[in-house]
Amino acid sequence: MSETSAASGQHVQSLARGLSVIRSFDADHVSMTLSEVSRRTGLTRATARRFLLTLVDLGYMRTDGRNFELTAQVLGLGYSYLSGQTLPQLAQPLLEDLSRTISESTSASILDGQDIVYVARIHTRRLMRVGIAVGTRFPAYATSMGRVLLAGLPDAELEQYLAQVQPRPLTERTLTSVTDLREEITRVREAGWAVVDQELEAGLRSVAVPVRGPGGDVIAAINTSMQASLGTGGSTLEEAVAEVLPHLQQTAAKITAALVAGS
Amino acid sequence: MSETSAASGQHVQSLARGLSVIRSFDADHVSMTLSEVSRRTGLTRATARRFLLTLVDLGYMRTDGRNFELTAQVLGLGYSYLSGQTLPQLAQPLLEDLSRTISESTSASILDGQDIVYVARIHTRRLMRVGIAVGTRFPAYATSMGRVLLAGLPDAELEQYLAQVQPRPLTERTLTSVTDLREEITRVREAGWAVVDQELEAGLRSVAVPVRGPGGDVIAAINTSMQASLGTGGSTLEEAVAEVLPHLQQTAAKITAALVAGS
Repeated sequence: MSETSAASGQHVQSLARGLSVIRSFDADHVSMTLSEVSRRTGLTRATARRFLLTLVDLGYMRTDGRNFELTAQVLGLGYSYLSGQTLPQLAQPLLEDLSRTISESTSASILDGQDIVYVARIHTRRLMRVGIAVGTRFPAYATSMGRVLLAGLPDAELEQYLAQVQPRPLTERTLTSVTDLREEITRVREAGWAVVDQELEAGLRSVAVPVRGPGGDVIAAINTSMQASLGTGGSTLEEAVAEVLPHLQQTAAKITAALVAGS
Repeated sequence: MSETSAASGQHVQSLARGLSVIRSFDADHVSMTLSEVSRRTGLTRATARRFLLTLVDLGYMRTDGRNFELTAQVLGLGYSYLSGQTLPQLAQPLLEDLSRTISESTSASILDGQDIVYVARIHTRRLMRVGIAVGTRFPAYATSMGRVLLAGLPDAELEQYLAQVQPRPLTERTLTSVTDLREEITRVREAGWAVVDQELEAGLRSVAVPVRGPGGDVIAAINTSMQASLGTGGSTLEEAVAEVLPHLQQTAAKITAALVAGS
């Protein structure tokens, strides 16, 4: 059966719009009315309504007639990706060991476009802001894992990133000059680790190292994050880095060894 | 702009098909050709191709021209749901404490249709099969958390479930008679906990208790799973249950208290 390209374009647009309706829900928008979804997606009320009701039919959304909420079935979409990834499954227990050893939260992430995406996360304390979980995205430039992942890119890809990125000041400490960012990434490449002190969020420090795949490429980053005011044992930034860095490097090496053993 | 109901039906179908393409990927199908996606979704090659290329355009899929893989951007869809849920965020650190105390893996799940869906999971050992992560689904009838969640349903909803469910023997021990299942759920309601011994998977035991919301309704279940051959300290099923049950009940009460404090 042949189709006109107009009809084909409709399919594309319908899928894009349906996915944008799902993504318009988040921690601050758990339950929304039709008007709110329409406002957040930029879709007309009639169009937003059609997609909301379709998602209800498909089981991804529920409604009491006025308010709409996502159902747990949406998790299955993320799981389609996550279940196929070896890295998070190998990294998770090793990060749990690391979190126990250093008594701090740890995470693994990968680069996706200009963002890092968390693929594993261990909380040790209830100090951290909530809402960081598998699937969370942050701009690569303002995070220790992002800088490690950028440092691991081939030169041409790094230059492409730097040509496009427009860093915004997320705190008063965020590096927003592309020149400064390039310098810092060069430093990270040479040192093999990155530290970010309150550039993503005030009060939050993070140290990251690269995880290499069986072929030697940087395929992920792992980090530990801690309160800037406390550090590990009320230490300076340098002392905090010196304390956690060997443990992070050891865990990264174990993840690589597990990937090699499994490949 | 008014639309014919045929055009409207097309939108619905496009979204459903696009989501089915995403869900056709899993641990055993990480990378697929057009033909494989077509076979697994039941879509024609031409239709499957259109949706795959749309997902590539939208950043949810990548291709080398022959093979297609999901990207980490897919995680963002699950995150739209997860970031809005208070329960997983409150439960995660409390389950980590529980896992440390009893030295076993722990999880939290909710009921979604006929399935349980994991919303938090802590691995303590590397004994368990991989692939159980947030978003994993299992049929409620064969799991300890499922039976706790079914026991927490209002009578009418439980009867509706029992009228529809068609239990399959996942192992040789799986309860497949609806009469037996109803009896077991009644026992779970009275006892306040469930144990499942190798009904989901040979060698795997699990004990679950309900988590109640601020209003007293069962809103989730938490469990611990252990090797049947080992139990906790090579114990019998009864000894293993007696050992972990008070800890599970304490953790469930703490999660409820945290939900009450936050509501």
